[in-house]
Amino acid sequence: MKTLFEKIFSPEQMLSSAEHLEPYGKDESDTGFFAPELVIFPANAQQVSDAFKICRSRRIALTPCGARSGKSGGSLPLKGGVVMSFERMNAIKAVSVEDMTAVVQPGVILKHLMDAVEQKGLFYPPDPNSLEYCTLGGNIAENAGGPRALKYGVTKEYVLGMEWVTPSGDILQVGKKTVKGVAGYDLVGLFVGSEGTLGVATEITLQLIPLPKYVKTALLVFPKVMDAARTVSATLANGLLPRTLELFDELSVKAVDGKGISFPPGTGAALLVEFDGTHEEGLMEELASMDGFASAHGCTESWFAHDESQRQKLWATRRTLSTALRALRRYKVSEDIVVPRSQVPEIIERLKGLGEKMNFPVATYGHAGDGNLHANILFDSPDDRPRVNQMVDQMFRWTVELGGTLTGEHGVGYAKRDYLSLEQSQPLIDLQHQLKKLLDPEGFLNPGKIFPDS
Amino acid sequence: MKTLFEKIFSPEQMLSSAEHLEPYGKDESDTGFFAPELVIFPANAQQVSDAFKICRSRRIALTPCGARSGKSGGSLPLKGGVVMSFERMNAIKAVSVEDMTAVVQPGVILKHLMDAVEQKGLFYPPDPNSLEYCTLGGNIAENAGGPRALKYGVTKEYVLGMEWVTPSGDILQVGKKTVKGVAGYDLVGLFVGSEGTLGVATEITLQLIPLPKYVKTALLVFPKVMDAARTVSATLANGLLPRTLELFDELSVKAVDGKGISFPPGTGAALLVEFDGTHEEGLMEELASMDGFASAHGCTESWFAHDESQRQKLWATRRTLSTALRALRRYKVSEDIVVPRSQVPEIIERLKGLGEKMNFPVATYGHAGDGNLHANILFDSPDDRPRVNQMVDQMFRWTVELGGTLTGEHGVGYAKRDYLSLEQSQPLIDLQHQLKKLLDPEGFLNPGKIFPDS
Repeated sequence: MKTLFEKIFSPEQMLSSAEHLEPYGKDESDTGFFAPELVIFPANAQQVSDAFKICRSRRIALTPCGARSGKSGGSLPLKGGVVMSFERMNAIKAVSVEDMTAVVQPGVILKHLMDAVEQKGLFYPPDPNSLEYCTLGGNIAENAGGPRALKYGVTKEYVLGMEWVTPSGDILQVGKKTVKGVAGYDLVGLFVGSEGTLGVATEITLQLIPLPKYVKTALLVFPKVMDAARTVSATLANGLLPRTLELFDELSVKAVDGKGISFPPGTGAALLVEFDGTHEEGLMEELASMDGFASAHGCTESWFAHDESQRQKLWATRRTLSTALRALRRYKVSEDIVVPRSQVPEIIERLKGLGEKMNFPVATYGHAGDGNLHANILFDSPDDRPRVNQMVDQMFRWTVELGGTLTGEHGVGYAKRDYLSLEQSQPLIDLQHQLKKLLDPEGFLNPGKIFPDS
Repeated sequence: MKTLFEKIFSPEQMLSSAEHLEPYGKDESDTGFFAPELVIFPANAQQVSDAFKICRSRRIALTPCGARSGKSGGSLPLKGGVVMSFERMNAIKAVSVEDMTAVVQPGVILKHLMDAVEQKGLFYPPDPNSLEYCTLGGNIAENAGGPRALKYGVTKEYVLGMEWVTPSGDILQVGKKTVKGVAGYDLVGLFVGSEGTLGVATEITLQLIPLPKYVKTALLVFPKVMDAARTVSATLANGLLPRTLELFDELSVKAVDGKGISFPPGTGAALLVEFDGTHEEGLMEELASMDGFASAHGCTESWFAHDESQRQKLWATRRTLSTALRALRRYKVSEDIVVPRSQVPEIIERLKGLGEKMNFPVATYGHAGDGNLHANILFDSPDDRPRVNQMVDQMFRWTVELGGTLTGEHGVGYAKRDYLSLEQSQPLIDLQHQLKKLLDPEGFLNPGKIFPDS
């Protein structure tokens, strides 16, 4: 395999020993290990294009990857072959204060970009939980979200233009470098979130916004999850738009209790809320209004962060939640459903009831403000898996029934491909197949993702 | 022609007399009159689908239209045939405070939607100048912008999902009804802004946001356009993000002077600026900061709107500008270029110089905050047109050279299709042709738009 690429890639740009390949065979989706035969590290768009042409002509599967922090198996080399890692294309090429734009390579780690632009008084809002190690290229492939999506939207809202290599090896400039622009079809719209199946970005022009001057954070404690969910609705319905509204249900509270923060006895839910803006007093007023809605809905305690270290402590409870839940039981399945905001209480109730009936604890937490919930089913043994899968199936059916979607920010990838038809009609799936076939008739690029194997 | 559609459309749903057809042969682009043979008014997606199937099988050109307020000729029936007008599919089907969404038919007039949601404390930000009569369907076809795009983005940022009829007549549910969602390819991304060439929306689910509690407006007066342009840069670079930053150059000021507002002698430019948010005092502080930057850059006078009627008076100068310019000379060509913000002063200087050299006045105004300028060339006789076209050609070349794009919000349509290759490479145009061909192999839907006739 290696010899095929020797004309393009130097020996330092290729890995082929089993030990080196191993990390490239898995991601954070818990959906298994799939060994590639070779990992290549392109340095520029031309090398990407050349490698695509080789793989395409020889029908060798090629799977692009960023930091392999994905939760849906999008970067797993299901069919072996070649993994193309962008980790060495990691330059921040420009940050312009005047234009409020950044130009980055796909391997740039999100946190590095955030730090670079914040030093200049600018802000890049999307903040997936993996921000300390995930890459911009991966964020674009999955259209990553995060808590701040509530106020600021997701990755696609910040991508102005890209250098994009199509499966046939064309190097295109799609989109624009300006904030506005509508010339031709919006290929940026089509390509962002295409999970590495329609090509890859080799350079990305991002829109930035002014860094909010003040951020105010509070953790609100409730006896019951319904109280917290109704507080979310009341807050938004009354014209307040926090930048985050993160929900913890009872089990989530229990998982992080005593680790940095101790919750009062009888805590059944919590909300982590954050307002940002240019006027400190205004934000304090907004936070006070929200606290008022929370009190009216049963909130028993509110902790305000008075400085950055207190703020970080509150956020640590949220950031460690996924890991903390893992400590409660040996296995967990984490889903990423979205329902219309008004249906958040309904889906939480149904899932809780289902967990009780099936005898598996369900922890529901996440971005309640935009209806995006991470529902975790905990279990002890691989033997439980069939019954857990039954629960997942039911969860997805309810989600769709309530007007929701199977994935808010993690993508379909490999993990959810068999469920896509629950949400989408056959003609809609057919059209997407045709788009894939138009761009990648041989199907060599990231095979097996999004759609079930035909 | 009419008989072909009689099985689907009632007599009241069809117009075929020359007198009735006439308004459907033109739009606001000044690019000519093209008579259709028939206008049909569908009432639902099924009728749209059936009509598509008839036209497709018989190779009859079908041109969809909204309010025909487009400025690029996107709704002109270049090849005659059938015009499909959505003006009777004009129901606002739902506005949900809790979900912060609206569901509308494509013929809903933008202002009607704005009023309906604002009554409920919600806000739909995109605000093209034609908002009193343009339709949501047209906004989606062109991905419409407007002054508030500076802070709030353009139409595509607010479209969650659509019922979409493809050229083959499939009725698809694309996108989602929730705020977040990444299942499958982002067909909403591809279809919004496709200018009626890849299908039409028959129902649209829009995201809304809380209505800002306060809006503060001011008009700032400068001796020179460069002073105003530099104030724009200084404002944004210092972390202020007004919702609008509208620029008037010298000729634009002259055109509206004395009509509601009288500018002081020696006025060479003006900025109409508006801040919005939840905290009144904070907004006053922001406006005062901005006024400080303006003073430092030569601003000689600032008028603050103290109530809504003063605010409307300031805005009237902006809204009537296009018409007022028309009164200065018999003809005008209005373009819709975008350059990176940092290049706004440069392009204004170049265009002014070009106008002087060619002896045609150039008025440049518009959304300076996002680099989107409406550059108007004024002239007296159709005989001037070849030299005006030369200027337009030069304008586009400079725009692209400075990293910009030919159209910020009006679309390519018919007016700019011959210039697309100035901005986009042949492989990029080829890919878009292939997408068009995949969805509409017969090329019956809105023929002749975006791409030059092959």
